[in-house]
Amino acid sequence: MSVNFEHFLYGGDYNPDQWLEYPDILKEDIRLMKQAHINTVSLGIFAWAKLEPAEGVYDFDWMEEIIDRLYENGISVNLATPSGARPHWMADQYPEVLRVNEMRQRTLFGERHNHCYTSPVYREKVRRMNQKLAARFDSHPGVILWHVSNEYMGECHCPLCQQAFRDWVKEKYHTIDEVNRCWNTSFWSHDYQNFDQIESPSSIGESSIQGLYLDWRRFVSYQTTDFCRAEIAALREAGAVKPVTTNMLYKSPWVNYFELADAVDIVSWDSYPFWHKGPESQTAVNAGMRHDVMRSMKREPFLMMESCPGAMSWVPISKLKRPGMLEASSLQAIAHGSDSVLYFQIRKGRGGYEKLHGAVIDHYGKEDDRTYQECRQIGADLEAIGQIHHSKVEASVAVIYDWENRWALEASAGPRNEGMYYREAVEKSYGAFRRQGVNVDVIDMTKSLEPYRVVAAPMAYMFRTGFEEKIRAFVERGGVFIMSYWSGVVDENDLCFLGGTPGGLMDVMGLRSTEIDALYEGESNTLHAVDSDAAYRCEHLCQLVDLRTAVPLFVYGEDFYAGTPALTVNCYGKGQAYYVCADAEQRLYDDVYAQILREAGVRRILEQEIPDGVAVSSRRDADTEYIFVQNFNPAPVTFCPEVPDGEVIFGETGARMKPFSTVILERKTTDE
Amino acid sequence: MSVNFEHFLYGGDYNPDQWLEYPDILKEDIRLMKQAHINTVSLGIFAWAKLEPAEGVYDFDWMEEIIDRLYENGISVNLATPSGARPHWMADQYPEVLRVNEMRQRTLFGERHNHCYTSPVYREKVRRMNQKLAARFDSHPGVILWHVSNEYMGECHCPLCQQAFRDWVKEKYHTIDEVNRCWNTSFWSHDYQNFDQIESPSSIGESSIQGLYLDWRRFVSYQTTDFCRAEIAALREAGAVKPVTTNMLYKSPWVNYFELADAVDIVSWDSYPFWHKGPESQTAVNAGMRHDVMRSMKREPFLMMESCPGAMSWVPISKLKRPGMLEASSLQAIAHGSDSVLYFQIRKGRGGYEKLHGAVIDHYGKEDDRTYQECRQIGADLEAIGQIHHSKVEASVAVIYDWENRWALEASAGPRNEGMYYREAVEKSYGAFRRQGVNVDVIDMTKSLEPYRVVAAPMAYMFRTGFEEKIRAFVERGGVFIMSYWSGVVDENDLCFLGGTPGGLMDVMGLRSTEIDALYEGESNTLHAVDSDAAYRCEHLCQLVDLRTAVPLFVYGEDFYAGTPALTVNCYGKGQAYYVCADAEQRLYDDVYAQILREAGVRRILEQEIPDGVAVSSRRDADTEYIFVQNFNPAPVTFCPEVPDGEVIFGETGARMKPFSTVILERKTTDE
Amino acid sequence: MSVNFEHFLYGGDYNPDQWLEYPDILKEDIRLMKQAHINTVSLGIFAWAKLEPAEGVYDFDWMEEIIDRLYENGISVNLATPSGARPHWMADQYPEVLRVNEMRQRTLFGERHNHCYTSPVYREKVRRMNQKLAARFDSHPGVILWHVSNEYMGECHCPLCQQAFRDWVKEKYHTIDEVNRCWNTSFWSHDYQNFDQIESPSSIGESSIQGLYLDWRRFVSYQTTDFCRAEIAALREAGAVKPVTTNMLYKSPWVNYFELADAVDIVSWDSYPFWHKGPESQTAVNAGMRHDVMRSMKREPFLMMESCPGAMSWVPISKLKRPGMLEASSLQAIAHGSDSVLYFQIRKGRGGYEKLHGAVIDHYGKEDDRTYQECRQIGADLEAIGQIHHSKVEASVAVIYDWENRWALEASAGPRNEGMYYREAVEKSYGAFRRQGVNVDVIDMTKSLEPYRVVAAPMAYMFRTGFEEKIRAFVERGGVFIMSYWSGVVDENDLCFLGGTPGGLMDVMGLRSTEIDALYEGESNTLHAVDSDAAYRCEHLCQLVDLRTAVPLFVYGEDFYAGTPALTVNCYGKGQAYYVCADAEQRLYDDVYAQILREAGVRRILEQEIPDGVAVSSRRDADTEYIFVQNFNPAPVTFCPEVPDGEVIFGETGARMKPFSTVILERKTTDE
Repeated sequence: MSVNFEHFLYGGDYNPDQWLEYPDILKEDIRLMKQAHINTVSLGIFAWAKLEPAEGVYDFDWMEEIIDRLYENGISVNLATPSGARPHWMADQYPEVLRVNEMRQRTLFGERHNHCYTSPVYREKVRRMNQKLAARFDSHPGVILWHVSNEYMGECHCPLCQQAFRDWVKEKYHTIDEVNRCWNTSFWSHDYQNFDQIESPSSIGESSIQGLYLDWRRFVSYQTTDFCRAEIAALREAGAVKPVTTNMLYKSPWVNYFELADAVDIVSWDSYPFWHKGPESQTAVNAGMRHDVMRSMKREPFLMMESCPGAMSWVPISKLKRPGMLEASSLQAIAHGSDSVLYFQIRKGRGGYEKLHGAVIDHYGKEDDRTYQECRQIGADLEAIGQIHHSKVEASVAVIYDWENRWALEASAGPRNEGMYYREAVEKSYGAFRRQGVNVDVIDMTKSLEPYRVVAAPMAYMFRTGFEEKIRAFVERGGVFIMSYWSGVVDENDLCFLGGTPGGLMDVMGLRSTEIDALYEGESNTLHAVDSDAAYRCEHLCQLVDLRTAVPLFVYGEDFYAGTPALTVNCYGKGQAYYVCADAEQRLYDDVYAQILREAGVRRILEQEIPDGVAVSSRRDADTEYIFVQNFNPAPVTFCPEVPDGEVIFGETGARMKPFSTVILERKTTDE
Repeated sequence: MSVNFEHFLYGGDYNPDQWLEYPDILKEDIRLMKQAHINTVSLGIFAWAKLEPAEGVYDFDWMEEIIDRLYENGISVNLATPSGARPHWMADQYPEVLRVNEMRQRTLFGERHNHCYTSPVYREKVRRMNQKLAARFDSHPGVILWHVSNEYMGECHCPLCQQAFRDWVKEKYHTIDEVNRCWNTSFWSHDYQNFDQIESPSSIGESSIQGLYLDWRRFVSYQTTDFCRAEIAALREAGAVKPVTTNMLYKSPWVNYFELADAVDIVSWDSYPFWHKGPESQTAVNAGMRHDVMRSMKREPFLMMESCPGAMSWVPISKLKRPGMLEASSLQAIAHGSDSVLYFQIRKGRGGYEKLHGAVIDHYGKEDDRTYQECRQIGADLEAIGQIHHSKVEASVAVIYDWENRWALEASAGPRNEGMYYREAVEKSYGAFRRQGVNVDVIDMTKSLEPYRVVAAPMAYMFRTGFEEKIRAFVERGGVFIMSYWSGVVDENDLCFLGGTPGGLMDVMGLRSTEIDALYEGESNTLHAVDSDAAYRCEHLCQLVDLRTAVPLFVYGEDFYAGTPALTVNCYGKGQAYYVCADAEQRLYDDVYAQILREAGVRRILEQEIPDGVAVSSRRDADTEYIFVQNFNPAPVTFCPEVPDGEVIFGETGARMKPFSTVILERKTTDE
Repeated sequence: MSVNFEHFLYGGDYNPDQWLEYPDILKEDIRLMKQAHINTVSLGIFAWAKLEPAEGVYDFDWMEEIIDRLYENGISVNLATPSGARPHWMADQYPEVLRVNEMRQRTLFGERHNHCYTSPVYREKVRRMNQKLAARFDSHPGVILWHVSNEYMGECHCPLCQQAFRDWVKEKYHTIDEVNRCWNTSFWSHDYQNFDQIESPSSIGESSIQGLYLDWRRFVSYQTTDFCRAEIAALREAGAVKPVTTNMLYKSPWVNYFELADAVDIVSWDSYPFWHKGPESQTAVNAGMRHDVMRSMKREPFLMMESCPGAMSWVPISKLKRPGMLEASSLQAIAHGSDSVLYFQIRKGRGGYEKLHGAVIDHYGKEDDRTYQECRQIGADLEAIGQIHHSKVEASVAVIYDWENRWALEASAGPRNEGMYYREAVEKSYGAFRRQGVNVDVIDMTKSLEPYRVVAAPMAYMFRTGFEEKIRAFVERGGVFIMSYWSGVVDENDLCFLGGTPGGLMDVMGLRSTEIDALYEGESNTLHAVDSDAAYRCEHLCQLVDLRTAVPLFVYGEDFYAGTPALTVNCYGKGQAYYVCADAEQRLYDDVYAQILREAGVRRILEQEIPDGVAVSSRRDADTEYIFVQNFNPAPVTFCPEVPDGEVIFGETGARMKPFSTVILERKTTDE
């Protein structure tokens, strides 16, 4: 299923339930939204207390009135199920819906997503609510999408969850002996005698069994996804036919989003880059990668469900967005495959935790406001480039970023308990590809490698079952594979491979990893090219290797392992396998990956050399390629993108690109 | 009521209850106290276990004997009610007196102020104790003041407090709908259905409703004050006629001291500046401001109830006071309106948490001790300047520092969750005034502005009800008002003003605040004078404004808002309203406020230019002005204070002032 | 009893219970151990779940088989009692065995040493297990030592422990009045009315009574030692005759190891220096001191029970050991009196918390592994120098490092709550002696001073009962005593001495300490020699003193106490007493202590000047002195050790010593 909304969705979260007693404001909202080209709002996300003010007493009329009015004014609705925060009466009546934290304390009512995903009561209350909403609103022409819950997060350690976890463990391992084997519980005599002894990890209990931790993470992700599936099932049972999504976060430790993505019709997520903090160009690369993670889950267009039109309020420092930044950030989402630009939120709330979070309409409430004016312009932009919607991003290069690997790395003690920098390692590989101006998929270890010429797997510490075989086959048939230090150390149960690492791939990589040296913050080593003067710095971790068939391209420059291999390549089957031994600086990745892409014959989107801070990406439909060129530098840059037979459909080309400016070119591909 | 003790009180906390088995020491104490000119001690502060060793068994004889002996030796007594720490048996017998923390755990016996201010049992036990103490000792000629409890602090989350809080909320808002409206609970669907659902904020419960947080702070302050009032009522019911005080802290988040001050006859507080940490002159300004806060509560002389004669023991680093520092610090209290110099404590305890805290009499116990010798000298000083006691400080300049505003700023998320620096902002304005050698009141938003020519309100984020009107009237009738960035954002319920900020004062200030930019630590911007070359740095926060009738005096020098106004003035009615847009460096405040004072015609105490680190202040009685000049620099400074017709009554004048030296001049004011 | 194993023990922890299903690996282990000269393993440390898989069901056969096989291959066994971690079924069946934390929460099953040492059930279960193990294995010729439990640690606050603590307090003080007096509970009215009110310190209860804290620490140490004694008694009751040890940690706050040492036949400990973190030579000094602490407990050879052959996994940064480092570190243990080099562990575990901790045999499992090769070499080394085993270290110099003093310093508030640096102060004195090439004992305040010419007692804040008398006698009869700042402040109950400090030793030291100044981090002062140009820096703490009979050798250079004494000496009886007033830099200690040793006529092991980073120490038996010279510098050093009539028995001498190299010389002492 490929969801197509026929145009870009533009708008954001709208919470009229906070303004029901201000009719003039509700009216003014419509006027201001229309003027800003807003065509879509997300409605009802935290409205449960208004939809069911007392148990079994439903009040949907106010919502229908608002949906009607929006629809009359050309504004569609992503209709939320309100399970992101339950009403107070439910916690009073059914304490089991409240979470228990890892210290085994039942929490009080408060915050959001403070409810047990296992609780039969909560599941039943949500089921009924969703069915009623579906019955009442799915057929409304203004409703175009179901926005299930909101940013599923957190975990619960209540007795119901403990039992569900035990059942899940039993289902997975069948016998307690197998649990003991896979979790290596004989360490410290932690052997289980029966399944009833299994408890979730706790700072006042078990925290040394890494297999338990890993399976707890898997269970929490499973249970959250299962809850989401139950929400969707309720909608469908009540006859809903509109597509379904749920908005994801990015850094969430609770949900493996590659798993959750399978439950929905279209992936959506909430994008909050910290612009104006570090170097703008690096922020842009990282923000782009996040979009690409979301896009790669289904290899389909996705939705940017939330983003901030002004300054975020929950960050340490609420930085204003410089003029043009919002436009650049919004169009970057489109460039990476989003079919929407949606904000949190349309109108700034009067009180509570996010009352100061940037919004399209400020407390001030009038249109002579910088943010509103910028939003209005972006609305016009999206109409101007409407033909791009639903086109796809095609990539022949992929980077592997795996949620389970991340969990396993976090759980493990050593070699750097002060920080392994997994995400940063992935970002370096991703950035090096992107700087060559190619589209990049970001996938996990379960995905097929069929579509790709070049695949990088940084710090693939845990080989999920089947991963070795997949890599072997990929290289054998001619793929170029890049792996880095601290890979292939453990199997899916976090048990160390015996007989040498990277486990099962020593022949493919042509080497054995022998030892890994951890460096203190501030320490570094160097990598020197074997056949040139090139040299680069590295930090954090230095893997030592024994070469078998691989040849060294770089060697270490310092310490007792000076002169030993630091970056190698091995020919295997029809392909090549590279091994990067140390956490090298970005420059090394940039230079080495450029060479690799050249040798692998991967086509760059533009043939020109791309200046620092300029991002190039593309989308395609049946007969057209849309090329996005964005200057993320806060200063002008000398660059004029050139595409043979290309036509500029957005922005201006000239000798220089302005700060935060975007150019979009269109090129017919019929004769390719 | 203006409490007059007829002379300066000199002495401090005295705990003979810790030394009852050392009769020689008790005797030696008297000798050493007399020799040091000590005339007052605070007695019985933590003596409950000795006064009521078992429930209902009272033993006051030892105390009477000590009061008698002190009185015979010319030493008066501030007699404490012992509620600052209850005896162990009470916690055993009545667990309800123990506090419950915000995690909802009943705490064990221990520490001090670990008792519920709501508990009927505790209130009853305190009532009985206070009545008995009053009946026995109020008429004793040696008792001159009731020292109610000690440093009220902390909060309790027990069921009794929860119910009291609910009652308080109900009393304030009447209906649950009004609560929901004022707390904007529809955010995240947190609407209350009834008052029974209301719970104090908790890290395992509600922490996102800022209105709830604010009202909880108000309730805790109210309940503490109510407890204090009940203590006083018990004394009065038993016939006590002596004046009453309770010693305050300064940074306390628990009690709005402007509220507590109304409950007592004379304000007293515990002053512990961190001398020899930062620049001495800045420490002196901050220490002075704290005295002025306390003095401004009643605009009457106050008592410095505690201070440390040596090194504090509970600080990170126990720095010795340099020779002269104690005298300077003690006389500073007098200069700012204190009628006492009192220490914690007379004799250093042998064991326990504060056994190493500086005291008049060391464990060593003999008089050839530096601290003792300095204390003795200060005792002599105070006798020498006895005529100053009960004179008043008069100020025509005020700075607003508001407890509720501080709570609201702390509760709010954004724009700088890493630090808003409210207190520091107030200190900058206060310091700029003080460096011009004028007395300064430090008041909250509830106080009258009648007495003042110039009023500064830094970061007045929350406009407490009626504040706008007060400011408007003040400026209209000719006052000079200075407000700074991030002012007038929310009303008393922490609800954002709609229609533009500063709420209700846009015409008075002649501008609208549009956006506020937060800067990372280390980032800065500049302010450039419109009509000169003057330039200053600013950091943390930069407010952007749209001018209406105001004119810019400074503009920003950097970032996308370079050239826009950074400091403005507006003429309104007969007065002027200044707006400082950014957290500017102290130098800017110094220069701009000097100009403002000149133009407002505020009289400086000395006409001379005052060197850095020299503090000038004054007290007055019917016909005399007492002028204090103190050199807080650790080095001599070239300065000789000159007062027409003035006479030096303390210290020496010459070409230079010694480090930490004080000069006091007296000037008759009969012909003014 | 002096335990003699007839050769150096070489090997380490071995956990075949984690590998029972890998018979090939168990077989390969034997081969690899033998090849590496391993002659001893510690067995069964965490094997309870395998030894008693269900309550009362014992399975010792697998263990016997392994002991047999090891014995057949020449490998002896330190047999553990498994009380370091109890099985899961025991926690299920008897919740009382689970600890309660200081927040009064019963913890869940997990981790290790998470059991109550008071619990009668746990004691009984351990007794039975130990008796059965003793009955079955003590007579096995392969078993040479009982390894009781493992790294006793932690504390429990359960009701059983509270009662045991109350009983212990009652036994010590007899009356509650005496408790109140000794703990000075009248401070803050914390007087106890009866023993039942006594509760262990808690962050939600009592934390201000320092006497309580100190006695709680003593109780925990007592109770842990008592538990250990009970374990040993069970072995003996079942007829065990083999010697007993328990492996200690070093920084443990829970157990006073000088107390625990009395319970065992031979001291053993786990040594984990952080090589390659700070300057190598300083790490070596500190590592050496730790060995000397352990050796000094019994003044007998000890065992290094654990050490890490590779990189530790539980440290912030898992640094690889540079080539040669493991050998240097291992031989350092021998040099300081160890009769063993034992590792944790022989084979790296597959999963769990320490799966990445360095081991003799890696997951890789083959012998072409750097760590394995180094271990094999060290095994050969130890065989080559076998004659040294059981020889003793003799020292005429001692430094006092006292566990109870450390507890008292930590508990006290002031003068530097940010850090008193007691351990570092001891290390400075220790290092200064060691740099002169003399052996040093490190003892606590209970030990006899008879054996020594020179004794240093840095920061002897608390004088344990009898300590003053011991020092006085020591100096009187001609000893050289060095004490430093912040000494003699409190008695054994943490009550401050009245009448002047150092309490009871003012005449011996010839001075009175008057005040102590604490310095902020980054601040410093200087010490200037009275009779030369020598000058040194000091930081943290500066004691001020009034001299009586002492004479100043150094005076302060800065601050208001410039010119006052900073280092003094007093002649008393036939000896001298030095007082170091400030936390001076290492250089001062080095220079002053060199002079003191010279004047005291203490013989240096080598007569040569010893270069920085080279360590010299010696062991002796009836007729031979073994001299160890180790270069701990990561670079070669120009040095050739020369011993008249000495013979090199290990390593090479020449113009230079290689990095991390060791030379051992043998010298006959028959004619001394």
